[in-house]
Amino acid sequence: MEKRPLILVTNDDGINAPGIRTLIEVMNEIGEVYVVAPDSPQSGMGHAITINDAVYCNHIKTGSDKPQMEYSCSGTPVDCVKLAVNEVLKRKPDLCVSGINHGSNSSINVIYSGTMSAAVEAGTMGIPAIGFSLLDFSHEADFNPSRKIVKEIALQTLKNGLPEGVVLNVNIPKLNSSGIRGIKVCRQAKAYWQEKFDKRTNPLGRDYYWLTGEFVNEDKGTDTDEWALEQGYVSVVPVQFDLTAHHAINELNGWDL
Amino acid sequence: MEKRPLILVTNDDGINAPGIRTLIEVMNEIGEVYVVAPDSPQSGMGHAITINDAVYCNHIKTGSDKPQMEYSCSGTPVDCVKLAVNEVLKRKPDLCVSGINHGSNSSINVIYSGTMSAAVEAGTMGIPAIGFSLLDFSHEADFNPSRKIVKEIALQTLKNGLPEGVVLNVNIPKLNSSGIRGIKVCRQAKAYWQEKFDKRTNPLGRDYYWLTGEFVNEDKGTDTDEWALEQGYVSVVPVQFDLTAHHAINELNGWDL
Repeated sequence: MEKRPLILVTNDDGINAPGIRTLIEVMNEIGEVYVVAPDSPQSGMGHAITINDAVYCNHIKTGSDKPQMEYSCSGTPVDCVKLAVNEVLKRKPDLCVSGINHGSNSSINVIYSGTMSAAVEAGTMGIPAIGFSLLDFSHEADFNPSRKIVKEIALQTLKNGLPEGVVLNVNIPKLNSSGIRGIKVCRQAKAYWQEKFDKRTNPLGRDYYWLTGEFVNEDKGTDTDEWALEQGYVSVVPVQFDLTAHHAINELNGWDL
Repeated sequence: MEKRPLILVTNDDGINAPGIRTLIEVMNEIGEVYVVAPDSPQSGMGHAITINDAVYCNHIKTGSDKPQMEYSCSGTPVDCVKLAVNEVLKRKPDLCVSGINHGSNSSINVIYSGTMSAAVEAGTMGIPAIGFSLLDFSHEADFNPSRKIVKEIALQTLKNGLPEGVVLNVNIPKLNSSGIRGIKVCRQAKAYWQEKFDKRTNPLGRDYYWLTGEFVNEDKGTDTDEWALEQGYVSVVPVQFDLTAHHAINELNGWDL
């Protein structure tokens, strides 16, 4: 009988978020699960790491009904992956899954997302990694329709491996199981956030801002994650951490430098 | 006579760091300068944004000897760019420069770097943007040899524009002016951090960790930023924020999903 894969589970919504609890349950059906996740919400932390502060990591007693090992970490999602692989896990995991995020990480959101940055960090260590997100920000979001999709993509990743330097960004539309039309491999849509700052004055008379924004997608392509999600498909975008714009090198070599 | 370009200056080491002071001085030679930078060090913040907290932004009176307008911001480098463009500047700037960072942002460091994330954020808004870093972590680093390089690359960027969806990651070796051999357009080296956590116990008996690490470059290419820097060249890497691994889409379409 084959050895069960070792799976690292993390997220950015914090270790008690419903999304990660669903992900843990699905991963328990596949392999031996270690959870190392933030002790508090870390949404929008991108690829931040803690370099000027101590990081705490506590083992959580989970009871005999829960097969997974759990650790909560005071750091960012990327800190969690670094700590997990270097200090908590007995060996390099066979898979790292992050999420299930409460809310979309499609298109440009990938660069702000702690969920995806955790997956990318695992990718830099040569670990097959996937970030999962459900297009529902609510704490009460229904993660049940995501279960089958998450399991299928995780199993295929374990079976096939991932191309070198690539991790997966999976977004799941807010639909019931019968409403989801399938899974599409996509490119990241060219979209951006149009910020709208909400300016207020605090009780001491000092102005401050809340960051809000409107998502603008001007990409008309039918091969993008935004298009797939709008059509009711799960989007899978292969994401790389070689950020070199190789196509631009020639043009820059024409500059007078 | 042509209108002087409007230039946004930011960084991640904080508004009082010597690196940004040098950058401001150089930009004053080129255009009309607005500085919106963090009020405290924000190294390693990656593309983090502040979504669950208020952000303060204070105008700093600089005196008549300093032509630039300055604002310190309580948020991350990416927050600074968002606030600057949407609330502080009278129009979209012609250029955004970030740095000069105290320390390297070559190869994989680009994904952790607040300096580069600020430039990337400006890029998502369609603003030509450049992150500058000097390979010297010291507060007393000598930024003088960087002046000519920074000015030259900024002027070329204003003149030529940048390809769509591309920003520049410029790293400068720690050499005097006569030691710098020139400027090379490069790709990001395939390198990674091998973490070494320093485990300690606090006075209350709780274990904690300090993140440390060793930089490992296994990329033997002579077209990488690491190679160029080792040879005494300034490296210029075109960086994109479309993270899609386009080359991997075909392979994933072969999966049984």
